[in-house]
Parts: sequence; C-alpha cells; structure tokens
Amino acid sequence: MKFNVSAQMTYDVRSAGTLILNIHALRTPTQAVLEETLTVDPYLKVEELFAVNGENRIIRLEVPEKSIVQIAYEATVDNDFEVKNHTSREEIMVGKMDPAVLPYLYPSRYCQSDKLFRLANNLFGHIANPFEKVVTLANWINKNVEYRSGFSNAQTSAYDTVTEQAGVCRDFAHLGIALCRALTIPARYYTGYAYQLKPGDFHACFEAYIGDEWILFDATRLVPLNGLIKIATGRDAADTAIANIFGDILFTSMQVKCELADENFEPFYY
Amino acid sequence: MKFNVSAQMTYDVRSAGTLILNIHALRTPTQAVLEETLTVDPYLKVEELFAVNGENRIIRLEVPEKSIVQIAYEATVDNDFEVKNHTSREEIMVGKMDPAVLPYLYPSRYCQSDKLFRLANNLFGHIANPFEKVVTLANWINKNVEYRSGFSNAQTSAYDTVTEQAGVCRDFAHLGIALCRALTIPARYYTGYAYQLKPGDFHACFEAYIGDEWILFDATRLVPLNGLIKIATGRDAADTAIANIFGDILFTSMQVKCELADENFEPFYY
Amino acid sequence: MKFNVSAQMTYDVRSAGTLILNIHALRTPTQAVLEETLTVDPYLKVEELFAVNGENRIIRLEVPEKSIVQIAYEATVDNDFEVKNHTSREEIMVGKMDPAVLPYLYPSRYCQSDKLFRLANNLFGHIANPFEKVVTLANWINKNVEYRSGFSNAQTSAYDTVTEQAGVCRDFAHLGIALCRALTIPARYYTGYAYQLKPGDFHACFEAYIGDEWILFDATRLVPLNGLIKIATGRDAADTAIANIFGDILFTSMQVKCELADENFEPFYY
Amino acid sequence: MKFNVSAQMTYDVRSAGTLILNIHALRTPTQAVLEETLTVDPYLKVEELFAVNGENRIIRLEVPEKSIVQIAYEATVDNDFEVKNHTSREEIMVGKMDPAVLPYLYPSRYCQSDKLFRLANNLFGHIANPFEKVVTLANWINKNVEYRSGFSNAQTSAYDTVTEQAGVCRDFAHLGIALCRALTIPARYYTGYAYQLKPGDFHACFEAYIGDEWILFDATRLVPLNGLIKIATGRDAADTAIANIFGDILFTSMQVKCELADENFEPFYY
Repeated sequence: MKFNVSAQMTYDVRSAGTLILNIHALRTPTQAVLEETLTVDPYLKVEELFAVNGENRIIRLEVPEKSIVQIAYEATVDNDFEVKNHTSREEIMVGKMDPAVLPYLYPSRYCQSDKLFRLANNLFGHIANPFEKVVTLANWINKNVEYRSGFSNAQTSAYDTVTEQAGVCRDFAHLGIALCRALTIPARYYTGYAYQLKPGDFHACFEAYIGDEWILFDATRLVPLNGLIKIATGRDAADTAIANIFGDILFTSMQVKCELADENFEPFYY
Repeated sequence: MKFNVSAQMTYDVRSAGTLILNIHALRTPTQAVLEETLTVDPYLKVEELFAVNGENRIIRLEVPEKSIVQIAYEATVDNDFEVKNHTSREEIMVGKMDPAVLPYLYPSRYCQSDKLFRLANNLFGHIANPFEKVVTLANWINKNVEYRSGFSNAQTSAYDTVTEQAGVCRDFAHLGIALCRALTIPARYYTGYAYQLKPGDFHACFEAYIGDEWILFDATRLVPLNGLIKIATGRDAADTAIANIFGDILFTSMQVKCELADENFEPFYY
Repeated sequence: MKFNVSAQMTYDVRSAGTLILNIHALRTPTQAVLEETLTVDPYLKVEELFAVNGENRIIRLEVPEKSIVQIAYEATVDNDFEVKNHTSREEIMVGKMDPAVLPYLYPSRYCQSDKLFRLANNLFGHIANPFEKVVTLANWINKNVEYRSGFSNAQTSAYDTVTEQAGVCRDFAHLGIALCRALTIPARYYTGYAYQLKPGDFHACFEAYIGDEWILFDATRLVPLNGLIKIATGRDAADTAIANIFGDILFTSMQVKCELADENFEPFYY
Repeated sequence: MKFNVSAQMTYDVRSAGTLILNIHALRTPTQAVLEETLTVDPYLKVEELFAVNGENRIIRLEVPEKSIVQIAYEATVDNDFEVKNHTSREEIMVGKMDPAVLPYLYPSRYCQSDKLFRLANNLFGHIANPFEKVVTLANWINKNVEYRSGFSNAQTSAYDTVTEQAGVCRDFAHLGIALCRALTIPARYYTGYAYQLKPGDFHACFEAYIGDEWILFDATRLVPLNGLIKIATGRDAADTAIANIFGDILFTSMQVKCELADENFEPFYY
C-alpha cells in the first residue's frame, strides 16, 4: 500500500549548533521508499548517516550561524504489510535467540523492565502463547492507560506510566516494551508516519520479537497497523528521537502528514 | 603488562534455563589475550557470541536440567596501557563525531543524563578542556560519593547516586557516564578485572570519548588504571552484566582474581 | 483479650546523642494498659512525650556519653477488639468529615496517593460500599504483593511497591494507605505488637476511616486482627518510626514478643 | 506594616462536590487580621475550620449542584515583621526540642530529607551556626536552581529539584525544607500573599526552627521577607494546598493581589 508522507520542521537557531533528525522513511524488505526529497532552507550541507546499530537513517546538519532553518521531507513509500496468523509462532527460548536481539531484553532509559518483573508475570505470565501474551498486554495498556496530551513529559518512563496510567503514544509504547522484556520477550521502540492519525504527527508504537520475527503492536489503537510507515527502531525513545538538538536551537513548528497514495485501504488492527 | 585473571562461578540450576556470561577478556588493539581456558562442570555446550554492537565476547550456556554448574575462566592477558597527555585533546563537536559514538550521548537505564543537564553544567560547564572536565567530574564523584558496600542495589541509577552520595563501583561509573553525557561527551560503561582490588571482584569504571579516542576513568580511585583488563563496554551495566540469568537459577558463589604476571608494575592514576 | 508484650533493644552509642522510641502501648477507649515497666540500663533520664498530634506515647532519651544502652519495655494490655458488621457503614463525604481527619487524605512521604489516583479508581472505583472497597484493595495487595524480607528498604514507598510487588508489612501498609487516599478514604499507618507473628517483631498495618470510625486492616494477613496491640498511628512510617536516632548511635539488637495472657483466643480476619 | 490582600477564584463545578480552600490570612502573635470579607457567589454555606494541627484557617464549601462558583477574599492585615539578629541563636539539640516540633524533622511527600542526608551534610555540615547554615543553603538553592515556570508539576519533589535544578517557588521551598531536615533542623512549608511578587500570585517559602523560634526564609529571593502575609504552614505543599478539590470541579481562573496599605516600606532580605 502506497503512502505520501511529509514532515516540515522549523528551528530557530540562535547560534552555531548541530541538529540530528530522524525523519526519513526506513528501507526494509517490507518497506520500499519509491521516491523522496529533503529540502533545507537556507542551504546547509546534510550528512546522511546510519545510526543505532547502523540501521536507522538519520541526517546531521551543522548550522554555522544564527538563522531560521526550515526542513522539509517528502516521500512516497510502499508499505507491504502482510496480515499473518501469528498465534502459531512458538516462543523462542533465550538460548536460541539471535545474539543481535539480546540487547532488546535489557532495561533501558524509559523501559525499566527490571522493575516490572513481578507485575508483568502476575498479570500475563499465565498466557502460554507468546503472540497472545503481547496482544493481551497491549489491550491491557489500552484499557488502563488514558490517552491524554500534556500529561507526561520527556522524562516520563514506563515505570511512571504503569502507575499513573495516562500518557501519549510514546508512553504507551514504552510500557508495552517494558512489559514484554519483563516477560523475556525482546521488544523495541518504533517511530513512524501514521495514516489516519489525527491531528497529524509522528507516531510511536513497538515491536515484539516472536518466533524469529519482529511483530508490530500499537497499544494506543489510534491508527490501523497497515497504515504505518517505519522511520526507525531502537531500545526506546532515547535511541530514536525525531530530533536531537545540540546547541542553542529552539524548535518552533512542525507539520507531519501521511496520506494514502493507493486505493482500497482496509484498516487492520489486532 | 601481563596479568593472570580468573573467575570461578557456581550456579544452582533448579530447572532447565539459560546463562549468559560476560567474563571473557576482550581482544582489542591494546589488549592481547595470550591464552585462556574456560571449563564448565558438568560439561555443557558453550556458545561464544559477540553481543552489544558485535563487540563484547559473551558465552551462552543452556542448562538442560537441575544441576550445580561450575564455571571457571582463566586467561593471561597483555594490557598495553599507554600513559598519554590527554590535555591536548580538543573537544569534538557533535557535528564531527563518528556516528557509532552518538548512542553513547543518549540517556540509558542507569545513566539518566537528561535529568542531570543543569547540575552537570552548573558544576562543570565552565571547564573548557574536555579531558580536564572529565578528570574534574571524576574527582568530584570521588570526593562526594562514599564507597559503601550494600548501600545500593541492582536498580540504583545515577539519578539516585547523585543525591544519595553512596554506592559501589557500578554506581560511581554510572554517575560519571551520566555527567559526561549531560555535558555532550559520549561515555560508556567498562567492566573488567582489576589488579590490586581488594577483596577480589569484577570492577566497573567508565570511558569518555575525547578527541576521537575512548579514555578510561575510574571515579573510585580504588585501583591503578594500568592494572585493568577490559571485559566489555556498553551503555551501562544493563548492557554488560557479568551474568544474565533466564530461568530458575541461583547464583551461589564467585571468586575473581587478577594477578601480575610481569615485573616492575608502576601504578598509574590521573 | 489480654496480652503480655515486650520489647528489648540494644544500642551502641558511640558519642552523646538522642534516641526517640515509639514502643509504648497506646491507651485508647478500646485498649487498656493494665501494667507496664520500662527499664533503661545504664540509668538514663527518660522523658515520656506525646507526639504527632499529641496522640502517640513516645520516649526521649538523651545519652550523655559513649555506652551500650539496653532498653526493656514490658506491658500487659487488654485489647477490646469488637467484631462488627462494617458493611452497613456509609461513605462519608469530604464535606462532612471531621477536620482532624482531612490530613489523612493527603499524600505523605511513603504514600504518594496523588500518583495512584487513576490506578486506584480503575481497580476499585466501581465498588460502592466503602468497607468492601477497602477489604477488596487489601485482598488485592495480599494477592499481588509477595511478602519478602530484605526486598525493600527504608526508602521504599507505595509508589515502588505498587509496581515492584514485593516487600514487608510496612510496604503492604503504605500501599493500602495510598490506595485508600487515592479513593478519598482517609487512611493512616498503624504500628503494634502482634500475637502469632513469626518471627516476633513489631508489625505494621493500616486504618481506614469509614463512617466516622477508624477500621483496622492488615493486607499481609499474617496475624489475626484481634491479636494486635496498638503502639501508634500516623501518616506513614515516617511519623511512627519505632526508633528515631540522632547522633552516632548504632542499633545492635532487638527482641519483640506478644503473648496471650488470656484464654479462648479466636483468631479473627476479614 | 499593613497590606491589603485579595484572592478571587472561579470554579466550574460540573456536579455536586466539595472545595477546601486555604486562602485566609492567619492570625498569629505577629500578624493581625484587621478586617476581612469572604464572598461566595452563588451563596453557599461556608464552614470555617482549623486544619493541620488545628492551626491553619481553612474553609470548606459543599457545592450541591452544577454551577460556576466565584470566591472572593479580601483582608487588611498588619504584619509585624521584626528584623532580628538571628546569628546569636544556638542550635537546639533534639533532646531539648518541643515535641510539637519533632514531626517537622521527618521526611514528607515532597521533602524526602532521608534521601538528602549525605548531600546536605557534605554541602553544609561544616557550618556551625544554625542560622548561617540555613542562610547558606537558601543561597545555594537560589544560585543553583533556575526559577522557571512550567518546568515542574504537582508531583515534583525536593528529590527531583535537587538534581534537575529548575522549578518555581514551591520547589525552592521544598528543597529548603528537605535540606534543613537532613541537617536535623525542623522546617516547614509556608504559603502566603506576597507584596511585590510579579505577576501577582500566592507565594511559597519556608520556616526553619532555630533556637526555639520559627524563622522565615525565601530561597527564591523574589520578594522582601517583610512583605509576606502568612496563610498557612504545614509539612509541605500537601498540607497547605491553596485548594483541595473533591469531585468533578475545574479550576478556571484566579487573581491574587497584595498591596501596601501603609507608608515607608523598606524591603528586607537576608
């Protein structure tokens, strides 16, 4: 299914500094970037780098002097989302896991799975099937955590959200990841463009590693899973921030879009 | 300088499970493993893997049934520690950093640098030279944090230690890393064998990335820097745990040694 | 029902300091102290004070010099525990509550009810009857929190326990209090002697204010409610610490007993 | 010195509920309420109560139905602030303190003095004179904590502020209290009207108990100490909230004023 995605961001650069942006659609076996353009005004040299395990596409801009910098990214992306029956996937024991996956079992800044061990096992430990386990915990988050803009902030972590029970997509994702890891299921943060997200914005959800494959989950249930365009994955939001700012640079505005460039979209959710 | 290092660990495995151990000396341009042996009793298949960015040497053991498992690692390692003048190193701007280094600027489970931003800059922001900045913050930790066994636990983080001001080597390292990152200096956790550490144990310290090189710091000042044998580096202790245990397995005992296998050791500290 | 209670404590006083102890049985309309003795060796002047709202009996000892101080308290106490039907009690609206009770609605050091608001209401908000609400939440704690010595420490609070789900009587009580307050039910910490507690120790539980009366609850279910002898109540453990130590004084040992001095004890639990 | 103080608050009451307000000027030996009026529109029965140790004047309003409630308080208050030399005050040992003061040594919801023990003693333990100790710590807060609206929220505590080093008057006060208690100096939260505070608002500062008297400190240094009109004191903001709301009631607006009703005001700060 094809989508046109775009992000426009404006920064007020008060003195020389560096911007690292994570807004490019990823190229993966199931996601093709058909075309894309990046415009930076005023003109600045843009480095495209591969970051965090060499997998995510990031851009780095050195801004040499005081200026208003406008960045515009546009792409047409074909997202080959396949609806599969995941309930037949078997749990993979740690002894058999690909070593590259092991770090996604460890606690991270916003996903303190070490602290959620008992809670996760008390709530979900009795579910044998790994896919059902993650579906159940995502539904539990959806039911118990209130989606509420402005409730949380950049420091809010899964340890907060599990008790305070309110937050935004980022918080829902962090809690999903922390619960998975506490259940010995590798899990990672996913940022992307999202079709039908209102108002338009970047979206965050998570992937759990079940039976040798990363499966996408969205505890917010705000958008169909087959309308997501992947930007990046990482241990949590610290790895995949849309923007990392170094220097006296203020974010001033942003506009994010994701529109269908195809026909016959059938929304899909678990 | 050559050292004989060894670690003996015993686990009471109550039912089938997996052990991941991070006890092998690393092979690096400045550290040569001259010989090493690993013994597991009873005999178990041992997988040697490269974990966390493919850099650390870890072993994975699947224990198929209830048993007492004894692991013994011994190695002779030549550590080519060079005393250099680091004060001439210049600060590298984020815009010029190797992308592989960027994740070591981000906050992690035990190093919440995002929360220490103002404190780090209030205390150390005025120091221009990057090496002196890190030496000063390590000395500040050494002066203000009391080394005290049993004060902290597996969940203690830099955010706790900066206020509670007591802990063990792990806590000193986490605080050093968090302060560096808050000052836009990449930093990572280091575990190793340590000559003259009493009682014998694994040791933790940290590396800061200054002028294109990772420089070793030890805020505890418990051992000479040239008596350290590197096992692993990572974002924090979550990446480099000596042991990750999956299943009903109890750690029962450990003995760690690091002895000089050379002559004329001159202890070195900053 | 009569009980003989006793507490023997030893302190290693390294230099002049002050001890405040909260070990005397309280005198209340339903608890009579029939006889009691307090011995301090070596002899020290003991002040008996009324602390925390003038209600708790505390003793204050100034220790003038280095010494080993032994304190022995013994009492025979008649605890008139009446089994009542509390389900007929109606919820008292805040607008009608005795003003002296209002502070027990506010969050305190170890009972951050402000952070548990959504969780408490999601879990228990649907229960109309106030007594059943508290019984249900106490049972929920009992089911989900593992009683485990050494898991928590002096800084552990309800906010930790609600997620980490392990702790001791103090943690069970703090969580019960925090949940009650989050549901607009005044609640306070209770310390006491406990018949049939093994091994012998001080015990902690909590009281909830339902229909103009403080009702006792024990989420640990370790001891019968009619075997408890009240020492003190307060906002949380900070108000009712068995000992507050000022100066270089080490606690070295303690022995606590509570024995039946009557016949025909019928254990009672909700 | 006489001041005219006023507070106007509007609440959108969506269904029957209770409001508890803490906006009346306190009557103390050094503060006389010369005249005051309270208007509630629409007319509602107002109970005036004494809360938190029977000392603070609070009002309780039961709002029986959906309505917009406007509350207006006006008073003329004479604040007899005496400039004294407090450096001659001696430290009072715990063994000699009035028992009513002891709870102000204990940690509370927003002032976790137990966690700041080492930090407080490392920074200020060497200062012998108790008044100078508190002046120094208040100046340290003023220097290191940035006054910044919107940085903190209702859950922010001294444990956060000591590291994050930004906040509003409430956070400055909580940190001052926590540091005092960690140094065995009783301390309490103070809310009041403040002359020359811009924009007009309620203000928060703290009192430390030095030499048998509560002395006022303001780590923000935003207003002169002799322009403060006391509303309430308590363990921290939890005890002295301007408003406690029970039910579906929204705060919609507030206007607070404090104007000089006298001549020849000489601003005073430590």
